[in-house]
Amino acid sequence: MKLTVLSGGVGGARFTRGLLAHLATTDPGSPVTVIANTGDDMWLHGVRVCPDLDTLMYTLGGAVHEEQGWGRRDESSRVSADLAAYDVGWDWFTLGDLDLATHLARTQWLREGLSLSRTTERLAARWRLADQGVRLLPMSDQPVETHVEVDDGLIHFEEWWVRHRAALPARRFVQVGLDTAEAAPGVLDAIRDADVVLLPPSNPVVSVGTILAVPGIRAALRETAAPVVGVSPIIGGAPVRGMAAECLATLGVDATAEAVARHYGLRATGGVLDGWLVDTADKDAADRLAADGWRARATDTLMHDVPATARIAAEVLGLAGR
Amino acid sequence: MKLTVLSGGVGGARFTRGLLAHLATTDPGSPVTVIANTGDDMWLHGVRVCPDLDTLMYTLGGAVHEEQGWGRRDESSRVSADLAAYDVGWDWFTLGDLDLATHLARTQWLREGLSLSRTTERLAARWRLADQGVRLLPMSDQPVETHVEVDDGLIHFEEWWVRHRAALPARRFVQVGLDTAEAAPGVLDAIRDADVVLLPPSNPVVSVGTILAVPGIRAALRETAAPVVGVSPIIGGAPVRGMAAECLATLGVDATAEAVARHYGLRATGGVLDGWLVDTADKDAADRLAADGWRARATDTLMHDVPATARIAAEVLGLAGR
Repeated sequence: MKLTVLSGGVGGARFTRGLLAHLATTDPGSPVTVIANTGDDMWLHGVRVCPDLDTLMYTLGGAVHEEQGWGRRDESSRVSADLAAYDVGWDWFTLGDLDLATHLARTQWLREGLSLSRTTERLAARWRLADQGVRLLPMSDQPVETHVEVDDGLIHFEEWWVRHRAALPARRFVQVGLDTAEAAPGVLDAIRDADVVLLPPSNPVVSVGTILAVPGIRAALRETAAPVVGVSPIIGGAPVRGMAAECLATLGVDATAEAVARHYGLRATGGVLDGWLVDTADKDAADRLAADGWRARATDTLMHDVPATARIAAEVLGLAGR
Repeated sequence: MKLTVLSGGVGGARFTRGLLAHLATTDPGSPVTVIANTGDDMWLHGVRVCPDLDTLMYTLGGAVHEEQGWGRRDESSRVSADLAAYDVGWDWFTLGDLDLATHLARTQWLREGLSLSRTTERLAARWRLADQGVRLLPMSDQPVETHVEVDDGLIHFEEWWVRHRAALPARRFVQVGLDTAEAAPGVLDAIRDADVVLLPPSNPVVSVGTILAVPGIRAALRETAAPVVGVSPIIGGAPVRGMAAECLATLGVDATAEAVARHYGLRATGGVLDGWLVDTADKDAADRLAADGWRARATDTLMHDVPATARIAAEVLGLAGR
């Protein structure tokens, strides 16, 4: 069974880890392609930082800081602390020492002329993702950076997200570079050739939304013979994690499981989804979606731990008929 | 009294620190311009490393690893250790964590379009060099990288120096970029307007020799009204530190105090020096040079500590008539 996942950072990484645990018992050896959002990427202090790719690598590679959900376990911040003494700005964004090793290796290879795809493949080799059947792809090899229009103008998404904790009213999100971006090699084929395409409970605006905005990806999702199913990142009217409500508000979308599903849209009517797994708290939403032709179901969607997440993955694959 | 120093790394930095200690008692407030070799600079793992500039900054800023002579005190290598797991090469060249902060700040500013001069000025601000009357300048704002021709072809100087400990026979040194390099802003004026120009006991080939090879610098040394005096890096037929003998051998120059002086040459006969301070072990060399018109003197030139170095600085200024 060939699976393709469109993923942001923490939520997508945890979901994919659960999916792998589920497949290990039911379909061992199933190839899983993870297409990661790279809209949060940036050049910081001269190195290339790719938050979602790294969260996926560390989580699937067993090196993630478990409580935090991102970054490396046993991390320290000796470099960042010293760097602050040079007054370089962005001192609210700490680059961990171990995490910096990843950025340095990536920057070296990018500067040597390798694509982000090839660079990601080399980084992932250390974390043995291929041994788990996982191929990690950036959504695009071209830089796409999400900026946020606030009262004072455009700021980088990470400044809005990390520094301001999404508290500055956002008028709109601007994906700088998107016009000339292409899907990375393998991305469109992974969607077209999949048996199931999965949307994990990632941020529907700045994670999955950015992936969907890459030219060709939305069309590939409409064309694929595979069912496209997702897990709601909203439970009972609030995001499980992160500041998705603020992002959705910018688009005029309510922070509810149903509104997010309708924002993605049903494939039969021009959207990208066939099925939507919601939490038991949102059973009514599942019923209304089902009445409108969705494959919808309610279950406990809190990813407490890997076994719980494996069960959620099984449920959403069930929506896809697998 | 305006002083200008042409410096490599450890030897030049220690000498300059002693010079400042001497001036603090005799000529407080004297402006000292240090022109640093940048031929050892390189891009490593995507960041710009400038070994001699950093050794000067850390030494004059009170942050140097005293026993080692270069790098930061209380240094660690967490990033480098983790980076090695990515198989990026150059694992014999450890970038310290604190040192990396300097490289990241520099790389950020260079990537923003600042010159190496302006970048160096910003970095030096943290170390309060201006408060000591010191202006630290790179020899050039254009990248100049010393490569070494060995049997297998050209390798970067740092690979020859650090990895091979200068044990591979070197056919010649090639300064990549030198043809199109210009002296950095302020460099030629600092030589022309100085009251004394000093050559510290730095490597005469790959440190001072590289500075002298920058277009315009040798001419400025010939033209300046200031006496140009130096301290021999060779004592009793051997370099005090480093692998200068191997470098000199490549040029066919004996590793003696006298041969190095004659390699630099007397200004009156087309060279760059007026005076040469040698160790008491080389008293005979001083006598022979003096007989040929040099201002030459022998004294204890081992830079045991700051007071001993201050005394050496006083001696060489004495050769300059100050």
